[in-house]
Amino acid sequence: MSPEVRKTAEALREKAFAGTKAVDWVRGLTDEVGPRISGSPQDMAGVAWVLATLKAAGFTNVHAERVMVPAWQRGGETGEVTAPVRQKLILAALGGSPPTPEGGLEAEVVEMASLEDMESKGAAAVKDKIVFFNKRMERASEMLGYGYAVDVRAKGPSRAARLGASGVLIRSIGTDHNRLPHTGSVDYVAEVPKIPAAALAIPDAEMLERLLLRGKPVRVRFTLTCGDRPEAESANVIGEIKGSSKPDEIVLLGAHRDSWDLGTGAIDDAAGCGIVIEAARLVGLLPKHPPRTIRVCLYANEENGGAGGKAYLKAHQAELDKHAAALESDSGTDRPTGFLWTAGPSAEPFAKEIAAILEPLGAGTLLPGGPGADTGTLKVAGVPMFMVRQDTSRYFDYHHTANDTFDKIDPEGLDRNVAAVAVFAYCAASTPELLERIPPDKREEPRRPDRPVSRTR
Amino acid sequence: MSPEVRKTAEALREKAFAGTKAVDWVRGLTDEVGPRISGSPQDMAGVAWVLATLKAAGFTNVHAERVMVPAWQRGGETGEVTAPVRQKLILAALGGSPPTPEGGLEAEVVEMASLEDMESKGAAAVKDKIVFFNKRMERASEMLGYGYAVDVRAKGPSRAARLGASGVLIRSIGTDHNRLPHTGSVDYVAEVPKIPAAALAIPDAEMLERLLLRGKPVRVRFTLTCGDRPEAESANVIGEIKGSSKPDEIVLLGAHRDSWDLGTGAIDDAAGCGIVIEAARLVGLLPKHPPRTIRVCLYANEENGGAGGKAYLKAHQAELDKHAAALESDSGTDRPTGFLWTAGPSAEPFAKEIAAILEPLGAGTLLPGGPGADTGTLKVAGVPMFMVRQDTSRYFDYHHTANDTFDKIDPEGLDRNVAAVAVFAYCAASTPELLERIPPDKREEPRRPDRPVSRTR
Repeated sequence: MSPEVRKTAEALREKAFAGTKAVDWVRGLTDEVGPRISGSPQDMAGVAWVLATLKAAGFTNVHAERVMVPAWQRGGETGEVTAPVRQKLILAALGGSPPTPEGGLEAEVVEMASLEDMESKGAAAVKDKIVFFNKRMERASEMLGYGYAVDVRAKGPSRAARLGASGVLIRSIGTDHNRLPHTGSVDYVAEVPKIPAAALAIPDAEMLERLLLRGKPVRVRFTLTCGDRPEAESANVIGEIKGSSKPDEIVLLGAHRDSWDLGTGAIDDAAGCGIVIEAARLVGLLPKHPPRTIRVCLYANEENGGAGGKAYLKAHQAELDKHAAALESDSGTDRPTGFLWTAGPSAEPFAKEIAAILEPLGAGTLLPGGPGADTGTLKVAGVPMFMVRQDTSRYFDYHHTANDTFDKIDPEGLDRNVAAVAVFAYCAASTPELLERIPPDKREEPRRPDRPVSRTR
Repeated sequence: MSPEVRKTAEALREKAFAGTKAVDWVRGLTDEVGPRISGSPQDMAGVAWVLATLKAAGFTNVHAERVMVPAWQRGGETGEVTAPVRQKLILAALGGSPPTPEGGLEAEVVEMASLEDMESKGAAAVKDKIVFFNKRMERASEMLGYGYAVDVRAKGPSRAARLGASGVLIRSIGTDHNRLPHTGSVDYVAEVPKIPAAALAIPDAEMLERLLLRGKPVRVRFTLTCGDRPEAESANVIGEIKGSSKPDEIVLLGAHRDSWDLGTGAIDDAAGCGIVIEAARLVGLLPKHPPRTIRVCLYANEENGGAGGKAYLKAHQAELDKHAAALESDSGTDRPTGFLWTAGPSAEPFAKEIAAILEPLGAGTLLPGGPGADTGTLKVAGVPMFMVRQDTSRYFDYHHTANDTFDKIDPEGLDRNVAAVAVFAYCAASTPELLERIPPDKREEPRRPDRPVSRTR
């Protein structure tokens, strides 16, 4: 990296660290648009908001790229223990769940510690019952706890259906003790019937656990009126800071514009939208733009389908070789501690230089990892992938709950992330040569939920 | 205090500090009975549970004393900002609120910082509007923050109605940032119409504040289907540890059996019930009971009417002179830091001895204060009043919300409170003479919400 590039990157870091407008973008997307689940009216309101915001912020080539998205819709949802005592249960349908029968689904509850526990007990234990997956997510500074616990949400409903269960309840995948359930998507498989599935708030899951411990059969009734609606139109929204000498080469900064429906999607992922918009905007304010173009893409449908990431890959096939690097921001406003990266080995000195510049932010560590769920679709083309490493020890208190609202935003954490992303974007847009791409044998996305992963879908 | 009494009190302290069954009583009342709002079926289920529990725990003279209580009932409740943007608002009807018109109440919102702010702006600012009291409760280790903020909840609705408002919304009186509103009672006055009143979850109140800051008129619609039902039967439940030589002299330990309806009333006040039951039970297990009788009373209707405290006063007129002292526990499981007391000045050495015994618990401070809302009715008779002083800096994160559930109970905090109450009860039941009563000129309950008070109704 040249001394001039390094000096400019350090100045960007200092400027962002001192305070940015990122919090304004987050406030706008949460207060003025609100919850933005795919296929909802607010999803399209979010498209309009981002288009207007990028234009007003000085981006060029601002446009929407059409994406068809699933349009699952939440309805009413109630639950109660009906025996041996009566107690209300606070729960939320998981994304993709079918409705229960009218009047609710009532059955005896059978508790399972994990998918493996259920498989070992088999159909005899499960048939016609409501399976209660009681797998506890541990608090951790990385995403380990989530990766460990989330399988019961993603795979539990179809696995339980295969064994004849009538419905599934899970202990919310989260680290709080609030009576606010954590929703999230289910990977229903085609071969077995879709059964209703909901997440219990953690205090409610713990009450159910205590009642089950007493040894008497516990029955639960729950009612969901959610369901799928026809696919709907949505969009990836793009804006650019045009490169000064190699404008066809692209550094991509991604975040997702959609959110779950319970909160206003502040940490997940208005925060990421604010971070990448503001980082690119700050680079755009420099007296001279870096050689390459910095492109922000605010993706559609990260949460329940990934249609935005797939659509980007398809729409930009012709220029994938020109993608110099991609970074994704989707971990809230928790403070950066370093970078996760995946690229060819000769890119390491670049990554180390970025880390050195970010050391004064407390963000000087480097680990292999990433990509995110959206930019990750470009891995097949070997695009070098980066992600700010963040301390997510509080993130899963709010993730996918009604509590994901603007007041959870840490403005200083947001600015620190802007600083990290601006430094990365400027430097990646300024290297003399393109960074070495991910070796072909490493372009399959790893499936290792037992170690730090960056997917929070 | 004799060396024997002191030694026994210290042994009680050590035994309780090492671990008690209090958490089992709290678990029973919350898991097996659940929310216990006055006049509900669970209110009477709570009476049955306490009667059975006191009998099984070895209390004598276990009985219920009939109390007629108000039976306000929550219904459906929804809210939304309708202009200049659409946003859902999470809210809860305040206790005693009438329903809104069918289809909801919609009006422009006018924000008021306080009752005084509204009075100064007058009817012109308020008429036909929804008044939004945006008074922030500060976190504090004592009850100051609550006392300061709660006037808008108690008095705001009738004050606003007098100025022609159509409805009232308040920022929840609490210290959290969860989307779980804090309910609580309203003191509707007879002379003005009762208008619908609800508490916004704090994140929702802050969103409303931000939208108002933008300067455009903000409109809200909210719908409540709550309302009053006919007065219902409930009961104070009493049990005793009979005194060995002066059984007609009574040390009264009170807590309230009723709760709000949103949570399961764990910290408010299953905790207090568990503390006083367990403290008395531990004294009852001693080889020799103290001279005086220790009576526990689990009161009806503390939260929205105070009928239990009034009924006790009326039913026990004939023995008020025999009430040696009263202690109330109604501040959750936060750890004890000392004692609040109100009695005649010659009782001070007794209070100091109690504090000295409790010093190893970290509960050695003494302050004037108390009484609680239930035992406080006995102040007119001058009964010496005591209350464990607790660090309530987290209490108002959960108070009166759906989050008031068993998982919020700190078992060690609970045991420390049991230790403090057991020491108090044993010592107060063992003094050679009755403690000096509250001087007649100090028997009026002070109204000083700007200093530590123990009323959490």
